[in-house]
Amino acid sequence: MTLSWIDGAPADSLSIKDRGLAYGDGLFETILVKAGVPLLFERHLQRLALGAKRLALVLDLPLIESECRTFAVQMSEGAMKLIVTRGDGLRGYAPTPGAQVRRILQSSPLPAYPPANAEQGIRLFPCRTRLAEQPLLAGLKHLNRLEQVIARSEWHDTEHAEGLMRDTTGRIVEAVYSNLFLIKGGVLLTPDLTRCGVAGVMRAELLTLAEQMNMPVRAMDLHMSDLQRADEVFVCNSVYGIWPVRAVEQLNWPVGPVTRKLQNLVRGLLDI
Amino acid sequence: MTLSWIDGAPADSLSIKDRGLAYGDGLFETILVKAGVPLLFERHLQRLALGAKRLALVLDLPLIESECRTFAVQMSEGAMKLIVTRGDGLRGYAPTPGAQVRRILQSSPLPAYPPANAEQGIRLFPCRTRLAEQPLLAGLKHLNRLEQVIARSEWHDTEHAEGLMRDTTGRIVEAVYSNLFLIKGGVLLTPDLTRCGVAGVMRAELLTLAEQMNMPVRAMDLHMSDLQRADEVFVCNSVYGIWPVRAVEQLNWPVGPVTRKLQNLVRGLLDI
Repeated sequence: MTLSWIDGAPADSLSIKDRGLAYGDGLFETILVKAGVPLLFERHLQRLALGAKRLALVLDLPLIESECRTFAVQMSEGAMKLIVTRGDGLRGYAPTPGAQVRRILQSSPLPAYPPANAEQGIRLFPCRTRLAEQPLLAGLKHLNRLEQVIARSEWHDTEHAEGLMRDTTGRIVEAVYSNLFLIKGGVLLTPDLTRCGVAGVMRAELLTLAEQMNMPVRAMDLHMSDLQRADEVFVCNSVYGIWPVRAVEQLNWPVGPVTRKLQNLVRGLLDI
Repeated sequence: MTLSWIDGAPADSLSIKDRGLAYGDGLFETILVKAGVPLLFERHLQRLALGAKRLALVLDLPLIESECRTFAVQMSEGAMKLIVTRGDGLRGYAPTPGAQVRRILQSSPLPAYPPANAEQGIRLFPCRTRLAEQPLLAGLKHLNRLEQVIARSEWHDTEHAEGLMRDTTGRIVEAVYSNLFLIKGGVLLTPDLTRCGVAGVMRAELLTLAEQMNMPVRAMDLHMSDLQRADEVFVCNSVYGIWPVRAVEQLNWPVGPVTRKLQNLVRGLLDI
């Protein structure tokens, strides 16, 4: 059974005037819930708050937090999707004076990814869709996701569990619903996300973990040549944790020791 | 009174699972309706069809056309907003197999723009928000409109009726809810929209009109220096027609004869 709430009350339909529909004017978080507890929840709230600040959305964060916790108890296990929008609009892009941010919660079952993704690693599909450079929106998990929709439509086989996305100048940025990390000479490298891309909650968690482990880590511009020279490659998100990447087209990597170490640490965070 | 339909039946709320909300996965048209007739309707349908093709949305265009015509009769006068989305989604960016495109129609009153906008012309606010270059989405009137939302939030005074938008490399592209034209030495110039921007219905109409009038016309890359050297400047859309532009910051233009001529022609198209 799936649950859904709007502004704290059970509802499965939304005002047709919502600016989330009209303009994608809002943000979302997809939060793993186990045993009634939302996981990595502080980080999700932090990213939401940051996005809201950049989009000038006025959120009642304590209310959102308590609603999510209550919702998580009710759903018990699965993925909890939180959407916040700028509420109802009139005609035109200017926000309606006094409009209230709308809070939307939806549950869905835990996604049934093949266990082989985490164990043997995955192949990335090399997406032709390039991410546009828009510093104003970079890093945010906003509702304007047509680039991801188009990229995800590029492959239909089950051989590729994820797709590699580059920006319009060819830098590697992320995967379609994951962030990307490389390991080279013991250094953890991940693309800089100041021009495009979603700054994932698991990415942030890994950057912190690496620091705590005294593992050198850098967020920087990365190209296909860096991928080619990497010792290990993996993707991550806050729902599945870490999947080693074994191949992109003709490039291959082993599932290496750093990936396995981080994967085990992260498994602990997502499995209560 | 405002009307709204979903898939041909009166409705004012929408499934919470709609991919228009989740990802902005859809397109829209804002169509002027007078005396029960949708104006420039063929052009709106053409642009919708083009957008649907590029986003791989399978539309029943004859059904959409007949629904819009019936809706227009019922609303009689105002702005008719048509949204099409990829219907309900499951989790993830891949479209749900077999999902049906959803059709959403909403009426709103004719916007009450000051008559001075058309008569004396307007000032454009020079938006700092830059449009990202994304050729895959350029020209389409899709639901990913956060750039416009942010740009429109840059000014609150009534002195600026519209805002000038440039791309990330500084080319002038359009206004926030209008297209832009310059006249220089009797030639009609408008920004090329293959990297970003919305290819407006009124813009297309004007390009055709100019050809019929043997007025030379070019869609090309334009910069602030071109604006500076222009003899006349105007903005247009399919709801208000043409507004002369008299100023952007310290730059000034007279309301010139070509603008007036086109404005009168267009007035005929929007006033039945």
